Amino acid sequence: MKFIIQRDLLLESIQHVMKAISSRVTIPILTGIKIEATEEGIKLTGSDSDVSIESFIPKEVDGIVNVEQIEPGQVVVQSKYFPDIIRKLPLKTLEINTDEQFQVNIISGGSEFHLNGQDAMEYPQLPVLHTDNSFEIKNDLLKELIKQTVFAVSTVETRPILTGVNMRLEDNLLNFVATDSHRLASRKIPLSTENEGLSFKEVVIPGKSLVELNKIIDDSEESMSISVTENQILFQTKNLNFLSRLLEGNYPETSRLIPEQSKTTVLTQTKALLQAIDRASLLAKENRNNVVKLETKGNNQLQISSNTPEVGQVTEEVTTESIDGEDLKISFSAKYMIDALKIIQEDYVKIDFTGAMRPFIIKPHENDQILQLILPVRTY
Amino acid sequence: MKFIIQRDLLLESIQHVMKAISSRVTIPILTGIKIEATEEGIKLTGSDSDVSIESFIPKEVDGIVNVEQIEPGQVVVQSKYFPDIIRKLPLKTLEINTDEQFQVNIISGGSEFHLNGQDAMEYPQLPVLHTDNSFEIKNDLLKELIKQTVFAVSTVETRPILTGVNMRLEDNLLNFVATDSHRLASRKIPLSTENEGLSFKEVVIPGKSLVELNKIIDDSEESMSISVTENQILFQTKNLNFLSRLLEGNYPETSRLIPEQSKTTVLTQTKALLQAIDRASLLAKENRNNVVKLETKGNNQLQISSNTPEVGQVTEEVTTESIDGEDLKISFSAKYMIDALKIIQEDYVKIDFTGAMRPFIIKPHENDQILQLILPVRTY
Repeated sequence: MKFIIQRDLLLESIQHVMKAISSRVTIPILTGIKIEATEEGIKLTGSDSDVSIESFIPKEVDGIVNVEQIEPGQVVVQSKYFPDIIRKLPLKTLEINTDEQFQVNIISGGSEFHLNGQDAMEYPQLPVLHTDNSFEIKNDLLKELIKQTVFAVSTVETRPILTGVNMRLEDNLLNFVATDSHRLASRKIPLSTENEGLSFKEVVIPGKSLVELNKIIDDSEESMSISVTENQILFQTKNLNFLSRLLEGNYPETSRLIPEQSKTTVLTQTKALLQAIDRASLLAKENRNNVVKLETKGNNQLQISSNTPEVGQVTEEVTTESIDGEDLKISFSAKYMIDALKIIQEDYVKIDFTGAMRPFIIKPHENDQILQLILPVRTY
Repeated sequence: MKFIIQRDLLLESIQHVMKAISSRVTIPILTGIKIEATEEGIKLTGSDSDVSIESFIPKEVDGIVNVEQIEPGQVVVQSKYFPDIIRKLPLKTLEINTDEQFQVNIISGGSEFHLNGQDAMEYPQLPVLHTDNSFEIKNDLLKELIKQTVFAVSTVETRPILTGVNMRLEDNLLNFVATDSHRLASRKIPLSTENEGLSFKEVVIPGKSLVELNKIIDDSEESMSISVTENQILFQTKNLNFLSRLLEGNYPETSRLIPEQSKTTVLTQTKALLQAIDRASLLAKENRNNVVKLETKGNNQLQISSNTPEVGQVTEEVTTESIDGEDLKISFSAKYMIDALKIIQEDYVKIDFTGAMRPFIIKPHENDQILQLILPVRTY
């Protein structure tokens, strides 16, 4: 194998596939990066069995040459040193070649590295997906879906299915739902009409996979293709394949958790509420799971407070747009509320309460695509 | 105590005094920040016994009012919550007041914090320095002196005196020297003539104190005053007092370590050499203290190499300006060499070797104010 390549392109591909590589894998060769050179270009692969990422660098794009003097072949190189070496090379291009003992030689200017590599034949074969369950979505919309739900997945393994995000597609509406059983985040996006007839509801993608995917895809108007099989999901752009296993099991039916009526409705500025709760939580950090109290007052005032006897207390007055319905005193996790408010870009939020012991709903004002639910904490 | 103050000014002062505050102190009240309000303004104090920092916010500067409605008094407030609270307050001004139980009330817009404080009478009194051993130095020069020497102090406590930087003043030349007995860094700066007659050589400032001082002083042309007593040193700008204890003991006589002749002299580009050694060290990280080999070659070529059998090997060719004298093979710590080259701003460095077993000297080309010495490692 041999090729000469633009350093920055190779580095970008390395950074992509590194997102899938873990030092704690049971198959030692998976700590390496697989490099394949073909007449079409260079393909890098990283995998930890759960997630596999392939990044392709075409030989030539729009007449601009990325890779030269390709002699086809493949090798696996240690991921511990390879990224730093490529990043620090002195010239903008570099040559990589291998010998029969899988030694990987990296040459750039006066710099020559000779790394012990491994036989790529020993690298596990990635599954090839055969499915008609494919649809297209714009990158920036997928990133929104991920960011607005994945924070709510469970981080404990007591119910493994809750560590994933439930992806549903029905009536051309794509819906991501995540819950850790204390709070829930849901985001819907209508798909373009081309996907009519496609429908699924039991797809659960590991939260970890979505976090990594979100780091790799750029926030552009370009589209990616999503293909689903029984136990794998493939996110595919022109030069990137992101393959993740799916979680097994039945995702709980979450729609019945969402209260249908409301006893107290608050309309207020998102940012002012977020900052007030953030401040009120400062003293609550060592105290009962970061709990703050919220109380409706006259004149459309909300009071948010927290009291940690050893440290002190804090009261925040927030002037809302309107408070309708019953008076309310409720306690909840400041962290959950901050998480929920942070992902709302709209200037105003509407919060629907159904009493101090019942879950409450946070939505952007006049936007039904986002729904956040939080269970209160019993303190009153 | 009561006052109304600009949030950003208070925050800046808090960040300064926090540099002296440690959560691991034997006197519990030192985990707090002392706040003193007088008719002149607000003074904050932070201390861990070794280092004490006082930051003063004048009531008024050039007609601009910083602090209003001052009612004199003092209190000690917990440093764990206070900085975050001030940073997140909703308005640009805030009121602080205290009651007789040392409760500290912080009010800004709709936000009210009530923190448990402590009696400032229980806060240790800082020593007042009486000394004529004072001189002035520009802030940016002091920062250079610190940055170009402090990295070479010892980080182990086997010889505590080596954890400090030796500050000498002789013939109006200020000299900072640091060594961990494997390498040495020295920087000299001529002082302005006003300090004639002043001289000392046994002042050893803890490296840790200088690192913190360097973070606080801004890189300006303004001057600060340095005052020395037998066991304390005070760095003083208009609104900041930085007081550090000095290390006790005799600093080793370092001048005799420095070889007076040279057998091999290399003149080369600083940055190219730094980058080559940085790359050569990539594979050496798990290998015998990060050791690389340097070898002179014909045609003004230097070869730097490293070999870690489990990982691979690297060779770097550096084209120098000139190599004069005997051929040389030498091994040394890449980390020490990188540290030494990093602080040299000049484009070219001169390295004087006296054989493979003797310390060698790195200096900027045509600048005798900086001298770096490194002991080789015996591998050949």
